[in-house]
Order: sequence, then C-alpha cells, then structure tokens
Amino acid sequence: MSTAISPLAPKKTPVLPALDGARIATAAAGIKYKGRTDLMVMVFEPGTQAAGVFTRSKCPSAPVDFCRANLTTGAARILVVNSGNANAFTGRRGQEATHLTAEAAARAAGCETGDVFLASTGVIGEPLETGRFTHLLDHLVADAEPDRWSEAGKAIMTTDTYPKYATATVKLDGADITINGIAKGAGMVAPDMATMLSFVVTDAPIDATVLQTLLRQGVGRSFNSITVDSDTSTSDTLMLFATGAAERRGAPRIDDAADRRLVPFRRALNRILKNLALQVVRDGEGARKEIEITVSGARSARSAKRIALSIANSPLVKTAVAGEDANWGRVVMAVGKAGEPADRDRLAISFGEHRVAFAGERDPSYSEDAVSRYMEGERIAIGVDIGIGRGRATVWTCDLTKEYVAINGDYRS
Amino acid sequence: MSTAISPLAPKKTPVLPALDGARIATAAAGIKYKGRTDLMVMVFEPGTQAAGVFTRSKCPSAPVDFCRANLTTGAARILVVNSGNANAFTGRRGQEATHLTAEAAARAAGCETGDVFLASTGVIGEPLETGRFTHLLDHLVADAEPDRWSEAGKAIMTTDTYPKYATATVKLDGADITINGIAKGAGMVAPDMATMLSFVVTDAPIDATVLQTLLRQGVGRSFNSITVDSDTSTSDTLMLFATGAAERRGAPRIDDAADRRLVPFRRALNRILKNLALQVVRDGEGARKEIEITVSGARSARSAKRIALSIANSPLVKTAVAGEDANWGRVVMAVGKAGEPADRDRLAISFGEHRVAFAGERDPSYSEDAVSRYMEGERIAIGVDIGIGRGRATVWTCDLTKEYVAINGDYRS
Repeated sequence: MSTAISPLAPKKTPVLPALDGARIATAAAGIKYKGRTDLMVMVFEPGTQAAGVFTRSKCPSAPVDFCRANLTTGAARILVVNSGNANAFTGRRGQEATHLTAEAAARAAGCETGDVFLASTGVIGEPLETGRFTHLLDHLVADAEPDRWSEAGKAIMTTDTYPKYATATVKLDGADITINGIAKGAGMVAPDMATMLSFVVTDAPIDATVLQTLLRQGVGRSFNSITVDSDTSTSDTLMLFATGAAERRGAPRIDDAADRRLVPFRRALNRILKNLALQVVRDGEGARKEIEITVSGARSARSAKRIALSIANSPLVKTAVAGEDANWGRVVMAVGKAGEPADRDRLAISFGEHRVAFAGERDPSYSEDAVSRYMEGERIAIGVDIGIGRGRATVWTCDLTKEYVAINGDYRS
Repeated sequence: MSTAISPLAPKKTPVLPALDGARIATAAAGIKYKGRTDLMVMVFEPGTQAAGVFTRSKCPSAPVDFCRANLTTGAARILVVNSGNANAFTGRRGQEATHLTAEAAARAAGCETGDVFLASTGVIGEPLETGRFTHLLDHLVADAEPDRWSEAGKAIMTTDTYPKYATATVKLDGADITINGIAKGAGMVAPDMATMLSFVVTDAPIDATVLQTLLRQGVGRSFNSITVDSDTSTSDTLMLFATGAAERRGAPRIDDAADRRLVPFRRALNRILKNLALQVVRDGEGARKEIEITVSGARSARSAKRIALSIANSPLVKTAVAGEDANWGRVVMAVGKAGEPADRDRLAISFGEHRVAFAGERDPSYSEDAVSRYMEGERIAIGVDIGIGRGRATVWTCDLTKEYVAINGDYRS
C-alpha cells in the first residue's frame, strides 16, 4: 500500500475558519491505526438542525441505520466519527455498538440519544470495540474548540492520501454566513472496504427540512456524479448541519427551500459539495488522471447520466486513459452497453477540444498527434454527443492503474 | 501485450471430428495481423438452418445488424468470419462492407445474400477493407473441407491465448449426431476492443425455430452467465447451425422444441455452450484464477443472478481474489450494491467449503489458515446465501490482475 500523496492532490490546502456553534475535538483512540488520530467529535449548540443522505446499499452499516432513524426529528447536538473500523456487517453487536456510543455521546453532550449522529469507516466485519473510545467522549466534549477543522479532516481519513477541505463565506440577507466541509475518500480501505464520508456545517439558521432539500438537490451533481470503481460502500454518509448561530448576527431563519434569500447560500453549498466530491475522485486509489465525462444530446438528463456513468465505470475506458490512449472505440462500447437510447450513426465523441468521431465514423480531420499530447495531461475531458435529444449530464472519475490493483490486491504480501 | 498462454488453459485440446454438411477453409488475408490466418469460411449444404443471439449493445457492429436481418428466413449457406477488424462504428461504410462481403460470399457459394452470415472481430472504428479478402472467397469455398475445425478456431482468435473448442456426439432417436463448437474470447483486442464470437454446428435435422429456442434457453446459463470486466462488446455473436445431413442416416427432422427425442441433444448442446463460455472466462485478459459465484436464497432466480453478477463485476472482489484474500467484506458490499432484496443479518458467505460469515457476522469458527490455503488455488468458488427465498444462480468470472491493466492500458508504450 502506497502512502505517497496523490499527484492530483490540490496544490493549496484551504484553511477552514472557526464556525459559530460548532466545536471539534479529536483523539488517537487506537481503534486500529497507530500513531494517528482516529476519533472525531463535533459538538453543536442547541437548536442545530441536521440533514443527511446515505448509501443506497441494501446492506448498510449499523451507523447508517442509526443516523437514518435519528434524522426524523432534524435536531443534532453531537457527531461522533471513528476511522479504522466501519462497524458494518457486524450484526446485533453492530447495533449494540451504536447504542453504547450514542449513550456515551449523549451523556457527554448533555442531550438525548436522538440528537446524536455517528459514522464509522474502516475494516468491515470486525466488531467495533466501543470500550476503546467511549470513555474519552466526556473529555473530548469538554475540550472541543471551534478552530480544529484541520484536525477533523485528518482524523476521519483511511486510505486517503490527503485530507479534504472546502469552505465558503456568503451573505444570507446581509449577514455573513460560513460553510465548512470535510470529506474522506471513496477508495477502499485495506484490508477491507471503505467509504465516502462528508460533513458540511454552516452557522446559517436553516430548518432541517430545507437542509434536506438542499442536500438532496446538491448531491445529484456532486457526490452522486462521481465514481471511482463502481463499487458502493455500505457506509457512504453525507451530512449537513446548520447551527443557526448566525441568527444572533441578524441572519434570518429560513424555513422554505424556495426562499429567494437562500440563492447565494445554495450556490455556495453546491460549489462546496462539488469541490469535495472532486477531491474524493482525485484521491481515488492509484489515480493518476481525473476524467470528466459530459454526455449531451441524450433522450433525457437521466438517460445522459446513465450513459455517462457507464463510460465512467468501464474498466476499458479507464485503463485506456491510464495508458494515455484516446480510445474512442471503448467509449462507443460503453455508450452501447448503457442500454439507453442511442444511434450509432449520430454519435460524436471528443477528447478535450479534439473531436475524434462524428456521425458514426472516425472524424477524418482529427490530428492523432494533437490528441496524444492532450491525453498526457492530468485532467481528461471526454465529450459524447448522442445526437438524439437534449439530455445532458457530467460525471467524474479517475483512471484505472496497476496501482489500483496493487492497493486492493497486494496488501497480503 | 503478453502472448503467453493463460495458466487456466485446458490441459488437453479436444479434436473436433468432421461434421456432415459443413466444410471449412481459412486464409491469411492480411486484414491486420501478419503471419497468421484471419479469415474463416464455413460452407453449409442446402437446407441448413440457423439461429443466433447477439450483443445487447445499443451500438452494434454492422455484421451484427446484418445477421439479425438475415435470421428471419432461418436458412444458411455460408458463414464468413474475419479477425483483425470488427467493422464496428464504421457508419455507412460499415454497411457497404457487409453488403460487398455478402455479395461475394453468395456468388462463391451459389446462394442468395439472405443465406449469408458474417462476423468480424478486432479493431473498431477503422473501415473494413473488403478488397483484402472478397477475391479469396471463390477459392476458399471451392477448397473447403469438413476436417478443418482446428484451423477454424485459430483463424477467429484475437487476444485469445488459446483456441477454444468443444464437441459432443449424441443420439437423436437412434441416429448418431455430432455437435462441434468454436469460440473466441471476451478479452478486449489491442489496440481497441473485442468480442465474444462462438459458432456451434450440428448435423442434426432441426428447424430454425427450434434452434432459436434451444439457443435462447442455453445461453442463460452459459454465455449470459459469464463476465470478464463488465464491458459489453458491440459485436458479441453466438450462432447455431444445423446442416440436417444426419437425416440421410435416419435422424428424424425436429420441428418442435418440446419433442422428447431432443432431450439428449439439448443436454449436450448446453454442456458445449457452458464449456465454451468457461473457456472464454479462463482466457480473460490477465486472468490467473477462475471465480465461480453461486448465489442462493434470493427472492428469485433473476434476483440471484443480478446479485451474482454484481459480485462478479466488482473490481474490489476481483482484485481481492487476485491477491488470494478471502475478503468477504467486499462480497457483502457487492451484495448491497446490487439493489436486490437482501437482509444483512441473514447473509452467509463461503469460500469453497469454508463458511466465513453467517447471520450478519463473521463466522467465529472459520480457520483463517485453511481459507488462505484455499485461496491459493486456481478455481475459487464463492457461495452467498441471501437467506430470504429460493432463488439461485451461478455465474463465472476471472480475477482482476495488474496484467489486465497492462494489456489494456500499456500497449502504446
């Protein structure tokens, strides 16, 4: 397993500012890793609202089940995240572990277990020994500070080669609002599997139902438009918390997703979600290149997205990009296997600015040399015009390299 | 690109006997390869019946379109197959190429173009220059002999590391019947993509409608139950021809798929289809291990097959097997992502005889050492009991190795 930082890592790491109403503490609980933090607690002030979207897996982890159940009230007071053990496929003991953790967290934060949210990432199938960390929660809650976002991003990492941060400041009806987000990668954790976790927090006073709407809409063009290897974790979790602390600085309480005053916030949130999602892709295991796939001219937007994901998940397309080969034949294959309406004789395919195929044939005018030079870059844009409608979608993925196989197949040696 | 024979190749190559009513010739037409045959002609006696199943791709190759159209009459007199160029995504010129080839083949065989069948495999997006081989067809038809099955299997190869043959002899109401089959692999052709092609021929007098029923039923548990990398070719073609020559030796003409006299034939045909399909998997690019995945206890057989294919297509499961790791956590993940009914707390997973997970938890009784030894073998059986119904399915795939990435990503270097 390589520990080198991905060549696609951001050149600059943003510094996340303290955010009113949220305090953070981390600890090295020794759940699995040695010499690093693996426990993160985020304490929210009373009145904090929460929303979440989770894995579509039919075998979700115990913490996912737990969070889904707790979202019904929309209230949140504390988030506890551990890395090193996913508490997934752990049966009744997994549920017991979430309940023991929630009880300890609720005691520490002085709230109900219904206001606790949990996430776990790491090995699956191994019981999570809550005894390793529940006794730490009292101290962590007491010790939590608002300016520890950098530590938070590091404590939740598994096979990530860099922590993932994004931040924005926007106006909400004249009041300054902060949005901070952290994420960890979709690469799979040796020696088992992993997860995408992301937590976004704002001090805006926004009701949980509105947060849920914003998140559901925002995720479609961000976290639900990325894929590393087509595999879906049992534990994928994206949560959005609003402490409401900005109300004290004059920000209005928002209880309607259609409220016009929300427009700048929504835009900033969507940028953060996309930014974090792309950081996840760029840290895909073994990734050397980011691939952006835009499908236009499909029967519908839904159809366009299905075709785009078919291309993004094709091992043959991904190995071709790894080999710096503008192999549009494999793109045709992936369009064909998507099962969506398409007409071979109307397809056009381009790599970056270079149109390589048109009207069902190789474009006779394209320069092999120019395309080859383009393929040497670290961001590859593949454009596919289906030519039969107006549906459009963009998804992102990374290339498939020998390092991916090494990371996921070699760790026993 | 490695040219070493797959370690999973059959230890013995079957010798296919001559088959009444079918004659074969091959040639080195220089379509793309040097120093090997790349053109195969099979000439059938008048009255030969044909059936076929083809790729589900929405962007099929020109020969696939051509064969589908010609199957309506059920009559066949000549099959022309070339390797080196798939005649796929070649637009109008692709259709012209099929028509030019069909006209030359019909003239050579003295039949209508409606009795001609074509298949092409190799590079896609490059026009197929029919001028390289149409002038050879007259001579090939004149020269064709019944005992050239070995040559036929070799002429259709692309990245296959070995030719694929299967044969059987059965009784049809007392008369001896032969069934011969050849196939080429599902691995993808450098520098583009490839295809699974398979042609099965019998001397039994069976009507085309019956052949079509037999093929459609037989393909479900053979060619439609294998996957190498989840990618679907534009050109997959499986055809079944019946020359009817055995009628002269007393075999009855069969025009009803429910005819009891057909039972031994159907069994033998299904064995041949499964045998050829497994040979294709065992020659998957970079394959070191064959993986057999059996899902039981699913809501339905259809649901079981979807779950089994989700496991078979998971890069994380395939890399784990390559790494000789009994990583059942990834199997759980793949069950979960299939989207089919499943209950985490009822799942049981085994590798070979070794049950590693049961009732939603790791099986406490399993021996890590014994499982590790099992994973060193070249055939890995993964069993998954969903525990909620009686649906059952088995699929086959191969592991995902660094060689796969090298074959598909490195060829430009």
